[in-house]
Amino acid sequence: MSALSRLLRPRSVAVVGASADPTRTTGRPVGYLRKHGFDGAIWPVNPRVTEIGGLPCFPDVASLPGAPDAAIVLLGPDRAEAAVRDLASRGCFAAIVLAGGFAESGDDGASRQQSLREAAGGMRLLGPNTIGLVNLTDRLVLSASGALEVDDIAPGRISLVSQSGGILGSVLSRGAAQGIGFARLVSTGNEADLDVADFLDELAEDEATSVIALYVEGLRRPGAFRAAARKAAAAGKRIVAFKVGRSAAGAQAAISHTGALSGEDRMYDALFRQLGIIRAERFADLLDIPAALATGRTMHGKRVAVLTTTGGAGALLAESFGLAGFELPPPDEATAARIAALSGEAAIANPLDLTLAGLKPEVMRGTMAALLESPAYDALAVVVGSSALAQPRLAADAIADCQALGDKPVIAYLSPHAPAIGAALQRQGIPASAAPESVAAMLSALATPVLPPAASEPAPVPDLSALPAGPLDEAESKALFARFGIAPVREIACATPEDAAAAAQALGPRVVLKALSRHIAHKSDVGGVRIGLAPGELAAEGRAMLARVAAAAGRAPEGLLVQEQVAGGVEVILGLQCDPHLGTAILLGMGGVAAELFGDTALRLLPIDRAEAEAMLAELRGAALLRGFRGRPHADVAALLDAVLAFARMGEALGERLVTAEINPLFVMPAGQGVLAADGLAVLT
Amino acid sequence: MSALSRLLRPRSVAVVGASADPTRTTGRPVGYLRKHGFDGAIWPVNPRVTEIGGLPCFPDVASLPGAPDAAIVLLGPDRAEAAVRDLASRGCFAAIVLAGGFAESGDDGASRQQSLREAAGGMRLLGPNTIGLVNLTDRLVLSASGALEVDDIAPGRISLVSQSGGILGSVLSRGAAQGIGFARLVSTGNEADLDVADFLDELAEDEATSVIALYVEGLRRPGAFRAAARKAAAAGKRIVAFKVGRSAAGAQAAISHTGALSGEDRMYDALFRQLGIIRAERFADLLDIPAALATGRTMHGKRVAVLTTTGGAGALLAESFGLAGFELPPPDEATAARIAALSGEAAIANPLDLTLAGLKPEVMRGTMAALLESPAYDALAVVVGSSALAQPRLAADAIADCQALGDKPVIAYLSPHAPAIGAALQRQGIPASAAPESVAAMLSALATPVLPPAASEPAPVPDLSALPAGPLDEAESKALFARFGIAPVREIACATPEDAAAAAQALGPRVVLKALSRHIAHKSDVGGVRIGLAPGELAAEGRAMLARVAAAAGRAPEGLLVQEQVAGGVEVILGLQCDPHLGTAILLGMGGVAAELFGDTALRLLPIDRAEAEAMLAELRGAALLRGFRGRPHADVAALLDAVLAFARMGEALGERLVTAEINPLFVMPAGQGVLAADGLAVLT
Repeated sequence: MSALSRLLRPRSVAVVGASADPTRTTGRPVGYLRKHGFDGAIWPVNPRVTEIGGLPCFPDVASLPGAPDAAIVLLGPDRAEAAVRDLASRGCFAAIVLAGGFAESGDDGASRQQSLREAAGGMRLLGPNTIGLVNLTDRLVLSASGALEVDDIAPGRISLVSQSGGILGSVLSRGAAQGIGFARLVSTGNEADLDVADFLDELAEDEATSVIALYVEGLRRPGAFRAAARKAAAAGKRIVAFKVGRSAAGAQAAISHTGALSGEDRMYDALFRQLGIIRAERFADLLDIPAALATGRTMHGKRVAVLTTTGGAGALLAESFGLAGFELPPPDEATAARIAALSGEAAIANPLDLTLAGLKPEVMRGTMAALLESPAYDALAVVVGSSALAQPRLAADAIADCQALGDKPVIAYLSPHAPAIGAALQRQGIPASAAPESVAAMLSALATPVLPPAASEPAPVPDLSALPAGPLDEAESKALFARFGIAPVREIACATPEDAAAAAQALGPRVVLKALSRHIAHKSDVGGVRIGLAPGELAAEGRAMLARVAAAAGRAPEGLLVQEQVAGGVEVILGLQCDPHLGTAILLGMGGVAAELFGDTALRLLPIDRAEAEAMLAELRGAALLRGFRGRPHADVAALLDAVLAFARMGEALGERLVTAEINPLFVMPAGQGVLAADGLAVLT
Repeated sequence: MSALSRLLRPRSVAVVGASADPTRTTGRPVGYLRKHGFDGAIWPVNPRVTEIGGLPCFPDVASLPGAPDAAIVLLGPDRAEAAVRDLASRGCFAAIVLAGGFAESGDDGASRQQSLREAAGGMRLLGPNTIGLVNLTDRLVLSASGALEVDDIAPGRISLVSQSGGILGSVLSRGAAQGIGFARLVSTGNEADLDVADFLDELAEDEATSVIALYVEGLRRPGAFRAAARKAAAAGKRIVAFKVGRSAAGAQAAISHTGALSGEDRMYDALFRQLGIIRAERFADLLDIPAALATGRTMHGKRVAVLTTTGGAGALLAESFGLAGFELPPPDEATAARIAALSGEAAIANPLDLTLAGLKPEVMRGTMAALLESPAYDALAVVVGSSALAQPRLAADAIADCQALGDKPVIAYLSPHAPAIGAALQRQGIPASAAPESVAAMLSALATPVLPPAASEPAPVPDLSALPAGPLDEAESKALFARFGIAPVREIACATPEDAAAAAQALGPRVVLKALSRHIAHKSDVGGVRIGLAPGELAAEGRAMLARVAAAAGRAPEGLLVQEQVAGGVEVILGLQCDPHLGTAILLGMGGVAAELFGDTALRLLPIDRAEAEAMLAELRGAALLRGFRGRPHADVAALLDAVLAFARMGEALGERLVTAEINPLFVMPAGQGVLAADGLAVLT
């Protein structure tokens, strides 16, 4: 049994710094342990009292009757370290430190945290600056959260790992009110030792947990997190994550567009997506979506039947389902006839509004059964209207009974304020919400398949040992890309304007002339790009460009690059960006101004496979331009996907040696004619 | 006193079809009238009983002791008409018909509704298919909504007009639970007579109402609605509307892009915006935003202070505020010093996290006061954390006391499940919500200024009497636009290929050749556009084009159009689309594929003024292309705005004679060089 398992399921706990005054924060944990029914040994430690709530209190850790499996330390930051050292030497497996005033509060706090970590030695440490943990399955509460004042917290199959203690309290208290049960809830605080990845790994093999909810501000160990998430997925557990950061200021000025377009939040988005983690968009989703997933039901299709007794609520649901991409087809003929026989009304619409007929329980039940059993639907959403307020159990039981008829998802929308009905539904395994958009979000989660993670596609990797460090010039960059199979436009690197003029004869009738330099990243900003030149203009224009760029950039370019001028392709941007923390991301976007002005880009972390590359392309609104939009020729999409995978292989082969790489534009030529890299840059370390 | 005023404040009410069984829907209204304290005369009508709940019951309308001011008819659809006729002849001012089975249920129902309307004669009618109305200020309840089972419904300054009875019940019941009070709530149902516009007009002069919430599925009389909304705005009342329809399938194939891009929902969006009506994005906003507006406070600026005792909740609020465009600057020096003196902690961050110091009421109060009084902030958002659960009143009162220190908005976020604290706050005039995005939406509403409606800019209107009906050809369309001041590219309409060749000499060196026809809308689809031609190619290409278009379109074009080929401009699309119901809309979008693929368009209803035209331009993400994006020249934005206003004037001058008109593309040339209409179409009736 690991130390972490013991921390979650201790047979004995020490409460160091426990107060005899239950109204104080330090008085809460002993009270909560007993109130919520912990059946192991509770050992309060406090030299100033001899007894707390009938339990003998020990003057210090050394006096404890044995080595505690776990301890919670309620002392201030200045005294916590000594307690942790005492616990470690006593043989305790894991200690929780609640106090703040550590790394979150500046440099002094950071060194205090380092000392704390050292004092723990081989003992595992949760916190500091945590609200602790709760294990409802085993009635263990090692926390001071005021949310534990609630009496009625039901156990369930959802576990929460939160980097904020307040969020743990919020989720716990809201869940209890909504009838949503939990297995374990952990607040990891400053993560001096145990972090989100550790608990995710532990929960992946926890039999009491089927859904894991995460509140994340940032990951300390992305690699361990990935491994733990994969382990959880392999064990059939679903993960839902809420991460703040969507409104953070964008990435700062970057050497490549890719760098500017792949901010941290988008990297996390890609990470979650590729690990099969559902990202909660709104905070309420962090409770609602796990509750839906905990039912264990899956929606196989996109067709929802909406049953209501009030038109307005039906319209709200129809709108939210429509925005989420669901379909609301009318009932099939047999189902319509079955319902009409029950209700005496034509049943041809969806949402199906029973109005007054819906007040008769047998009509409501029969209609729910008919809709659930219809082959025309993949799920049923039921509106709970104001009339149900008079008989809450009746409404909830009817829905629960019908749910048992099959394995399609059934979900409820609460139109009036009806928390008792909602809680009764949740306790019977029916997700319910008072927000139409949450109902749609829950059903979307149930319709989201668990995808296997992408693996690298094996391919020979060229010998890259001779590559220089630092930025490559455009010709060198594209030569590197060509080694992975991405063809550049025809081009000739030249040392002098005269060479360029000669080269142009082979590439004309119209050519592009560029300044060639490892040191000038944005060459068009310094007059280093001219298009549509006739070969005869090259010598003069080459001389002018060298002078112009030298003046504007403060250094002369090393040479000139002459290229054929490509017409008839669709421009895209393809980039790689290495984040030292999360890994290398690949970005595909529509070219021209679409990526920059309209944000029309897709981002993934490496590795990706062909299905993922196709999904990236499908995300781009501008991808219509590649598929014959308004009479345009169909572009060579297969070659584009090959190029995306080739670039991804290059990113994997170079690993952390690659800082950034970009092809902008990559011309996607008409079908059968491939792709051409027209401009490119790469920066290596 | 109007009939509508009497309906809202009757001295006597008849309840026709009242049941003596309070558990039946028809038994509810008499019970609700008495339970909620109506102090006028209540006259139940039912031939089968003599007494209902101690009140004498009358066998028919004729036997009533007088003409009732108002009546509620609880009979089924087949018997409602006779009751309405009896009430009208008895001299009743207004009747409410609850029964469904009228226009909402098909053709038979529609004719039944027509008969009902005729039976009412001069008596006003609310419904049918309505849940009735509630006037909490005057304790009048003429409704069967199960939401009225609630005992504790507080009066307040928000009134609701809803086209759905279920939504009325939902809003009423949720509001009561959240401590949000109402003045009047009306469900207009099928609107056989009284509609949303009637009640909006009545509420505009209602002293008890300061905020009007609307649930709208579609407007029967947009003109009356506009007038009523303006009247309400002039009276200083704010309006918040929720309208379903955002997920409706887009407009069908249309003759112009403008037609395809201006779907009904966008027209409503424009209508609301231009009337100063705040559109509720989520259903919860329809309650939350009115509650915020009912405080009467306004946010003058974008700077919010966030005060919290838990970092996670602060991060959630910061994210929602950031996404809504608010700023969270750190405290100014004086404020930071004032807070540090109180709390003993550095106060340099925003969100400001007091953690444990925040548990001391005097620290919390002092910090709130300091933040509210700081010149660095325009509003204060306070997190209510789990620790407040133990003493709900204390937390709510502290916030309420501080609010009284000034007139800046104060708003609360409820981190744990804390409905009692939320209700206590709302009752003291502090908007509160458990959803971070709702907190941001509420503050956004308080920061939204009430704008005066745009008026037409007076300008001479050319004589339009000689215009033909039906579609105009491209040259005729642009000639029409030119009469309002929008210059076309230089062009010459020609009858024959030989004329075109001659014309090209004056327009070269490169020209555009187009087929000219009133009857071919999409000429590029039939080979009717060629660009980049040399004048010498015109005769041959003209002949080929005539043949090609005739073959593809099934009819020969009437002529050819030769145009100069424009370079160096930024393409935009400018359109007008007449909706017979809501009026004429003007659309401005970025050209190329931006409007179609990225939806980069702005829409308004006429009239618009220059400020509105500027706001349209500011809405376009692609407008950066007009303002020197990445080294491009600055475009003639002033001329573009002139053109938008000129097109708007044309739309107003033509009124319903204009079906659709469009310039696509309109070239916006470099600054000082104006705009040029390169292609255009107009369809008149």
